Amino acid sequence: MEYKQINGDYVTIKALENGVTIFGLTRGRDTKFHHTEKLDKGEVLILQFTEITSAMKIRGKTQILTRYGTVESGND
Amino acid sequence: MEYKQINGDYVTIKALENGVTIFGLTRGRDTKFHHTEKLDKGEVLILQFTEITSAMKIRGKTQILTRYGTVESGND
Amino acid sequence: MEYKQINGDYVTIKALENGVTIFGLTRGRDTKFHHTEKLDKGEVLILQFTEITSAMKIRGKTQILTRYGTVESGND
Amino acid sequence: MEYKQINGDYVTIKALENGVTIFGLTRGRDTKFHHTEKLDKGEVLILQFTEITSAMKIRGKTQILTRYGTVESGND
Amino acid sequence: MEYKQINGDYVTIKALENGVTIFGLTRGRDTKFHHTEKLDKGEVLILQFTEITSAMKIRGKTQILTRYGTVESGND
Amino acid sequence: MEYKQINGDYVTIKALENGVTIFGLTRGRDTKFHHTEKLDKGEVLILQFTEITSAMKIRGKTQILTRYGTVESGND
Amino acid sequence: MEYKQINGDYVTIKALENGVTIFGLTRGRDTKFHHTEKLDKGEVLILQFTEITSAMKIRGKTQILTRYGTVESGND
Amino acid sequence: MEYKQINGDYVTIKALENGVTIFGLTRGRDTKFHHTEKLDKGEVLILQFTEITSAMKIRGKTQILTRYGTVESGND
Amino acid sequence: MEYKQINGDYVTIKALENGVTIFGLTRGRDTKFHHTEKLDKGEVLILQFTEITSAMKIRGKTQILTRYGTVESGND
Amino acid sequence: MEYKQINGDYVTIKALENGVTIFGLTRGRDTKFHHTEKLDKGEVLILQFTEITSAMKIRGKTQILTRYGTVESGND
Amino acid sequence: MEYKQINGDYVTIKALENGVTIFGLTRGRDTKFHHTEKLDKGEVLILQFTEITSAMKIRGKTQILTRYGTVESGND
Amino acid sequence: MEYKQINGDYVTIKALENGVTIFGLTRGRDTKFHHTEKLDKGEVLILQFTEITSAMKIRGKTQILTRYGTVESGND
Repeated sequence: MEYKQINGDYVTIKALENGVTIFGLTRGRDTKFHHTEKLDKGEVLILQFTEITSAMKIRGKTQILTRYGTVESGND
Repeated sequence: MEYKQINGDYVTIKALENGVTIFGLTRGRDTKFHHTEKLDKGEVLILQFTEITSAMKIRGKTQILTRYGTVESGND
Repeated sequence: MEYKQINGDYVTIKALENGVTIFGLTRGRDTKFHHTEKLDKGEVLILQFTEITSAMKIRGKTQILTRYGTVESGND
Repeated sequence: MEYKQINGDYVTIKALENGVTIFGLTRGRDTKFHHTEKLDKGEVLILQFTEITSAMKIRGKTQILTRYGTVESGND
Repeated sequence: MEYKQINGDYVTIKALENGVTIFGLTRGRDTKFHHTEKLDKGEVLILQFTEITSAMKIRGKTQILTRYGTVESGND
Repeated sequence: MEYKQINGDYVTIKALENGVTIFGLTRGRDTKFHHTEKLDKGEVLILQFTEITSAMKIRGKTQILTRYGTVESGND
Repeated sequence: MEYKQINGDYVTIKALENGVTIFGLTRGRDTKFHHTEKLDKGEVLILQFTEITSAMKIRGKTQILTRYGTVESGND
Repeated sequence: MEYKQINGDYVTIKALENGVTIFGLTRGRDTKFHHTEKLDKGEVLILQFTEITSAMKIRGKTQILTRYGTVESGND
Repeated sequence: MEYKQINGDYVTIKALENGVTIFGLTRGRDTKFHHTEKLDKGEVLILQFTEITSAMKIRGKTQILTRYGTVESGND
Repeated sequence: MEYKQINGDYVTIKALENGVTIFGLTRGRDTKFHHTEKLDKGEVLILQFTEITSAMKIRGKTQILTRYGTVESGND
Repeated sequence: MEYKQINGDYVTIKALENGVTIFGLTRGRDTKFHHTEKLDKGEVLILQFTEITSAMKIRGKTQILTRYGTVESGND
Repeated sequence: MEYKQINGDYVTIKALENGVTIFGLTRGRDTKFHHTEKLDKGEVLILQFTEITSAMKIRGKTQILTRYGTVESGND
């Protein structure tokens, strides 16, 4: 097993309401949900891109820190 | 399997209306849609370039964060 | 298959009118159109250089974000 | 054993109340809790991404320093 | 085939009049035209240096974005 | 033995009261305390991430210098 | 054939009068003209250093963009 | 013997009183004191992380220059 | 033949009078003139260090752009 | 013999009084003095970390330039 | 023969009087003059460190551009 | 023979009085003078760290440019 994977970039997601859902989508030919993480208000998830995860989908009101800036998800 | 692919660059897309569609287009000689992701208003998709995906097409009103700046898709 | 290709640079193109055409031109001795992507007003295409694509041609009114700045295509 | 893993990025988490919980989530196909760390008010945890850990979940009131900025978890 | 070539530097050329011509000149002992691209007013060409192309010649009125700045070709 | 490990990142911890405790937590599947360092007021510990240590826990009042900023542990 | 050569540095030369001449001089023990490119007023040449070219000579009135600044050739 | 170890990071410690003690702690599974250096007021020690040393402990009043800033040890 | 040589650093020399002479001096144990380039007023020479050239001597009035700044040769 | 060692970092030490002593301490399991350099007022020593030297101790009044700033040794 | 040597750092020396002498000193155990270059007023020498040259000595009035700044040699 | 040694860092020393002495000290277990260079007022020596030289000692009044700043040796 190689360790380069530990250097995958990461995002930081803070839930601003209960019931936020974060989906990890699979890398490769099939892009499917492989993981679902539920966050309640105030919880923070710090999440790397990995061998398995090449996309993330955030549903619900959150603050998201990425390399290219910060966005807020959810309806205002 | 090599892990360098986990370091593909990524964009962050926030849906500003319901029914946003994000298409992943295949790398290589044939550029075809291989994945379609639907977003509702407020949902965020964070999406890497991968072995499979070398282009993305965004339809609908969104805010997009890229390495070279931020653009808004959709009609004003 | 090597994964370095996932790190190809990319440009972001936002269509400012209907009927924008983006052509992918082939790398190598013959520079031919290998792909044509049509965009309607407001749609965004994010497009990497790849093993196949070493040039892109944009026809129609767009905003283009590149590493060296932003240009607008199309007649004013 | 290779030493590149010692260069995994890290976050710094300061508990701002008692009973903060930090979960380490496993890398790979199954994303499961593999470690739970409890912090009391004022304690600090400095935590790397590793071969095992590709995500962290923080529950309770904390200050978190990451490469892309600082966030506070917990309800205000 | 190696993929390093996808990282060749590129220039962005916007035609400011009809009938702009962009010539790709061959790398190596013989510097010959190997490709000619015609642009009409408003069209943009984004063009990498490649295994084949080590020089570009632009004829007609254009705006050119390069790593070292922007120039306008054509007579004023 | 490879020397790359000598380049692990490090943090600097200054004790601001007696009886500060710094725990080194093990890298890998089991995250356990493998070392405990006691500091009295005014003592400074400069501590690398290593093959063994992938996390550090600080209990008691300290000032901590990390790559992403400075935090104070302990209750005010 | 290796592709590193596609990353040779380049200069951008804009002709400010008719009849500008750009000479490519050969790398190696003999420094000879191997290529001569004629530019008319307004034409732009973007030119890489290559396996063959290690020097360029510009005769006539031009604006030249290089890594270390911009110069104008020709008599004022 | 490889020379990469000569590039280990280093800290600079200036004693601000007599009887300052600097401990070198061993890298690896056992974190033990392997070296003790005594400094009198005004003496400076410049100290690398090495194959052997992965942590340093400073007791007594000093000024310490590190990559992430300067701290003073000792009681005020 | 390796292509790394195409990345040798370069200087840009603009002749400010007729009869400027630029000498290429050989790399290695014997430092001899291996090439002499004559420039007339207004001509520009862009010149890489190469396998053969490790020094350049400029005689006559010129403006020289180097990595570490710009100098003028010649008597004022 | 490898040449990477020539790139070890270095410090610059200027003696501000006679009788300054600079000790080179050995790398590895035993940290011993392997070299002592005496400086008189005004003399400067520029000193690399090497295969042998992983620490330096300065006694007497000096000005020291390091990567992380400048310190003065000696009693005021 | 390897081409890395073409990337040796270089200095630029402008003679401010006639009869400036620049000595190249040999790398290695014996540091001897291996080359002497004479410059007259206004002449410029651009000189790389090479396999042979690890030191340069400048006698006479000159302006010298180096990576770490500019100095003037000679008596004022 | 490898060419990496040509990239050793260097310092620039300008003599501000006659009779300046610059000593090259040997790398390795024995730190001895292996070279002595005498400078008269106004002369400049540019000196790399090499396979042989890991320390330099400057006696007499000089101005010294290093990576970490400029110092003056000698008594005022």
